[in-house]
Amino acid sequence: MIKRSEFIQVQQRAADMIRAAGVQLTAAEAARIDVVDFGLSRVAVEGVQVFTMFATERISAKVLVMLPHQTEPEHWHPPVGEDPGKEETIRVIAGTLNFYIPGVDTLRHGWVPPGKESCYSCRHEIVMKPCDQLTLRPGTKHWFQAPAEGAVFYSFSTCVRDGLDRFTDPAIVRQTQIIEDLELLAAKS
Amino acid sequence: MIKRSEFIQVQQRAADMIRAAGVQLTAAEAARIDVVDFGLSRVAVEGVQVFTMFATERISAKVLVMLPHQTEPEHWHPPVGEDPGKEETIRVIAGTLNFYIPGVDTLRHGWVPPGKESCYSCRHEIVMKPCDQLTLRPGTKHWFQAPAEGAVFYSFSTCVRDGLDRFTDPAIVRQTQIIEDLELLAAKS
Repeated sequence: MIKRSEFIQVQQRAADMIRAAGVQLTAAEAARIDVVDFGLSRVAVEGVQVFTMFATERISAKVLVMLPHQTEPEHWHPPVGEDPGKEETIRVIAGTLNFYIPGVDTLRHGWVPPGKESCYSCRHEIVMKPCDQLTLRPGTKHWFQAPAEGAVFYSFSTCVRDGLDRFTDPAIVRQTQIIEDLELLAAKS
Repeated sequence: MIKRSEFIQVQQRAADMIRAAGVQLTAAEAARIDVVDFGLSRVAVEGVQVFTMFATERISAKVLVMLPHQTEPEHWHPPVGEDPGKEETIRVIAGTLNFYIPGVDTLRHGWVPPGKESCYSCRHEIVMKPCDQLTLRPGTKHWFQAPAEGAVFYSFSTCVRDGLDRFTDPAIVRQTQIIEDLELLAAKS
């Protein structure tokens, strides 16, 4: 869970990073950037920020933001009915994105969040810079992380069904729970 | 058809407009921007420039450039086998894009290229500015045009099969033919 005040603060920071990367956003779009803590209640360590340009039954385009030193937990997109699972292409806009997929352990620039070794099985590292692209076949396990400068990148994909994503970390709950700040509520009443 | 020298000149101009709009391109990417004249041999009047970020069997992301006063001819994306046809979402990055779809005639800001009235049946005008989006259902006829400032915009879609697009103008050939400049060839030999 995340406090409303922190949610808004992180959302604003993500909007600033997206705009600094050269992508224009309306005020209404900035206000619907999603801040995801994966139910782990430490969004600055494990989390992601998502601006969904649009999502239909067939395709979706998003801009994702990783804060400096933030890690998105390992996950994959399983088959759903006749859909073989979400196919996703990443393209970096700004910053550096350390991306991890199955393969030979080449992890050098990034790190597994301390105490979470069992929840991050992929150790094949791809260091991505602006204009670098990567297409993930459906079902491929992956996680990613930003070093000190953070990262802004596109995620283009087939139909998004975030609620069905599978995570290696059993503690994860995909839906972020926002709790109202007691101080704010008190101030309102 | 288009001369190699003009192709390269328009390609460079499109790359400049894309970068000025805040989208980064590598030199290799700039060099594969497609300049499309639809076989009409007057690309500055009827044409489009296309940077394909990627295209898979399921999805594609492109950045399109319309030069000032350039018009993309009316077309639609027909069904192909079990595919109901290409679904496409447009999002403007820079400039102004006048977009035309079926509906009440509201054409006020744009114009039909002189002498081509029968080739542009859609007259319902949508004037699009940066951050404006539009999703086209498969099979929807459409054409678009940039006024004096030109336009740079995303086109996100399901599987691209440009060669199967249908055009209202019977004179159109989708594949652009590039002819080598005789002067350039002479200089090389």
